[in-house]
Amino acid sequence: MKLKHSLLAAVLLGTTTIAAAQVPAERAVKYRQSALTMMGSSMGTMGAWAKGERQLDANALVLNATIIEAMSKVAFAGFLQGTPQSPGTKAKPEIWTEWDKFQSAAKDLQAATPKLLEAAKGGNKDAIMAAMGGVGKACK
Amino acid sequence: MKLKHSLLAAVLLGTTTIAAAQVPAERAVKYRQSALTMMGSSMGTMGAWAKGERQLDANALVLNATIIEAMSKVAFAGFLQGTPQSPGTKAKPEIWTEWDKFQSAAKDLQAATPKLLEAAKGGNKDAIMAAMGGVGKACK
Repeated sequence: MKLKHSLLAAVLLGTTTIAAAQVPAERAVKYRQSALTMMGSSMGTMGAWAKGERQLDANALVLNATIIEAMSKVAFAGFLQGTPQSPGTKAKPEIWTEWDKFQSAAKDLQAATPKLLEAAKGGNKDAIMAAMGGVGKACK
Repeated sequence: MKLKHSLLAAVLLGTTTIAAAQVPAERAVKYRQSALTMMGSSMGTMGAWAKGERQLDANALVLNATIIEAMSKVAFAGFLQGTPQSPGTKAKPEIWTEWDKFQSAAKDLQAATPKLLEAAKGGNKDAIMAAMGGVGKACK
């Protein structure tokens, strides 16, 4: 399981080695922060749309949902087991002290985001909002 | 054209206003840097795969191509006309002094990345590599 995670991280981080220990911690931090920035921004955009504060056309809805789904798949590769509290991180130490719980939450999120993408492609506002609720719940 | 860009930026950056001037510059910088980090990482990953340095399965190819395509669509919203050389930026001043050229290059990139995604979905290595060449050329 740990090896699988390391491999995934190495692949996604674009390293030339598959040993996660050799992925520089600052690179992992930058990667996950970037992924979470993109995910959070698109969630904020869709949230404002859901509240009627902003208009998004069909393409923008699908684009934002695509970003949320893709980022949910890759962001967690930047949280490497054994690299707690890297310099520059704002991540909570509980991520590492409660690693299994964190991994489980990550899986919940990764299960929720494809439903959001599917709903966004469908274009039904109620379905999209329901799926957003699922993603929001998993984010907590 | 400028208004359209401002609207796009406001929508993508998740601001509550549609006036680009009110998007904080540091937020725009963080957004575009995040998008470019994600795009660059996936390009690096696919580049290593193309060179035979790394194995990627069909899902990973599509995921990386999806990220490249989505980021190419949104990254440029973070380059706001009228916000040159924000604090913390590494962006070249030419982006703003040669704005039309930059916008044209952005469009070339945005035209190339959907072809990469399509090729990745198709799974043919030659087609993917050709499409990567197109993206790489547009990146310059």
